[in-house]
Amino acid sequence: MSQPIDIAVIGATGTVGETLVQILEERDFPVGNLHLLASSESAGSSVPFRGKNVRVREVDAYDFSKVKLAFFAAGPAVTLSFADRAHAAGCSLIDLSGALPAERAPQVVPEANAGVLDGLKAPFQVGSPSPSATTLAVALAPLRGLLDLQSVHVTASLAVSALGREAVTELARQTAELLNMRPLEPSFFDRQIAFNLLAQVGAPDADGHTSLEKRLVRELRQVLANPSVKISATCIQAPVFFGDSFSVTLRSADAVDLKKVNAALERAPGIELVEAGDYPTAVGDAVGQDVVYVGRVRGGVDEPAELNLWLTSDNVRKGAALNAVQVAELLIKGLL
Amino acid sequence: MSQPIDIAVIGATGTVGETLVQILEERDFPVGNLHLLASSESAGSSVPFRGKNVRVREVDAYDFSKVKLAFFAAGPAVTLSFADRAHAAGCSLIDLSGALPAERAPQVVPEANAGVLDGLKAPFQVGSPSPSATTLAVALAPLRGLLDLQSVHVTASLAVSALGREAVTELARQTAELLNMRPLEPSFFDRQIAFNLLAQVGAPDADGHTSLEKRLVRELRQVLANPSVKISATCIQAPVFFGDSFSVTLRSADAVDLKKVNAALERAPGIELVEAGDYPTAVGDAVGQDVVYVGRVRGGVDEPAELNLWLTSDNVRKGAALNAVQVAELLIKGLL
Repeated sequence: MSQPIDIAVIGATGTVGETLVQILEERDFPVGNLHLLASSESAGSSVPFRGKNVRVREVDAYDFSKVKLAFFAAGPAVTLSFADRAHAAGCSLIDLSGALPAERAPQVVPEANAGVLDGLKAPFQVGSPSPSATTLAVALAPLRGLLDLQSVHVTASLAVSALGREAVTELARQTAELLNMRPLEPSFFDRQIAFNLLAQVGAPDADGHTSLEKRLVRELRQVLANPSVKISATCIQAPVFFGDSFSVTLRSADAVDLKKVNAALERAPGIELVEAGDYPTAVGDAVGQDVVYVGRVRGGVDEPAELNLWLTSDNVRKGAALNAVQVAELLIKGLL
Repeated sequence: MSQPIDIAVIGATGTVGETLVQILEERDFPVGNLHLLASSESAGSSVPFRGKNVRVREVDAYDFSKVKLAFFAAGPAVTLSFADRAHAAGCSLIDLSGALPAERAPQVVPEANAGVLDGLKAPFQVGSPSPSATTLAVALAPLRGLLDLQSVHVTASLAVSALGREAVTELARQTAELLNMRPLEPSFFDRQIAFNLLAQVGAPDADGHTSLEKRLVRELRQVLANPSVKISATCIQAPVFFGDSFSVTLRSADAVDLKKVNAALERAPGIELVEAGDYPTAVGDAVGQDVVYVGRVRGGVDEPAELNLWLTSDNVRKGAALNAVQVAELLIKGLL
């Protein structure tokens, strides 16, 4: 077994942070001391790890020289506030917030671009992409040799759990109100999410794009090492508690060989290919699982250079916490 | 006021058929005698029209020479069984099932290709496209002069009401079971639809496409009079009772002028353009309305030749019944 490494998890009380701690335990990651950190509001609570409750402390006064590796699983503002201090203290960091530029912390999805890590030096700074970019990277990486990829079109239907526990509670509350024929007074969401679809997640910029959509485009181009590929991204909010679903259309320069595509997806790591005619769903397949489910593999209608896919993944596990731990597993040797 | 016309509605007990009768009344369509027809199982019930209950009769033995115009609002099998007889009896027909080839009954969306009707002779045979194709045609028609359209990418999230009342009941039942923590035994749908998304609506063919998706591609190409445009279509089932939502990406050969696009959508018939930053939803905007709502009008991320739109429409009204009545309104003069 590897020598244990002291680790900090920032944002330990959030959905992703808690799952990250759980995955470190599940995968028997060589954790020495585990320091759980959060903002002052969340500090004081505790999170279970290896049969004990680990107390969550305030991140503000934390001395990062106490650990070799820190996972930043809170928002971009927290990463921007503490990443420099962690780095200066010689602590490697894996950031899940998307706050750091690729030149400083390249985004890595082990199934797609693990090789990027070879070019880095300790203390490492690595990004773990958004759940959507991670899922797409896992599914598209095995197709790189088969398609002369011109464009990627994605409609990502995201679960409310990505917005935290309040969003989960609100979807349940709204649904119960409507089923009981009571008038709806939305909270958290600015309108009805139950039995409805919301066209955007978060506020759009002046050009109409949300930060999730821009992050998806930027990170997917970087992870696929294909800076010129055209990517259209629409991230919508579905009335689903857990698990993201992706409707994906790819255009190649040439006709797509569907047999080769199926064979490549079948043998690719991190993917479960669902048989033709059937399809995966977020709730029925992806939730709680460590793989990206791929189904509805089909060409275009009268369009041989088109490839369509349907993906589902657990936005908290494979989309976020697990990918960060997989990156850490690859970094272990360099940390010792 | 126009001279009244005797009319038959086949499939009068279905969601679309009932709404069609209601819209004939709302729009003061010059109906003389109204004959409501259905399969033997549904015959005998009645549907309200102008303050009276009209009895629904069996279609099997119906003499189509009694009416000048018949709406076929049942499934493709019913259209295929009775369209020849109706035509031979000199009865014009508007088919909503997609069963008839374009050469016999061209698909018409008045906002997009009303001119097609000028080339037809009585007794007329016209198709009213699928709700998805109708919605897309209304939204894309005003952009024809502005874009050199290369490709259209659509993910259509469809309401369960398109599958009839059983589907509506089942979504409500599954949702209530889950909220009450009772184990789920799906019926009607082959799996959980509550708080989930299903990747296909209906069975796919050997190539993986569903008939809804093929119909969307075929009809949209025909209505836009653009047989060579590349269209990728994915129709998914959303846990939404009423109203369809569409995530649409268009690619033009040249840079898209967003100001001109907004201006064209603003003045186009049948469209309600939602202001930038906001967006329409199926439940909050489209349901019960006669227009297609368009929002999230935006270019691509670093891609000037891309145009993204979000559409919502009432699948039963604007998507189906209303469009058929609008076609009938254009045909009236030729029927007298």
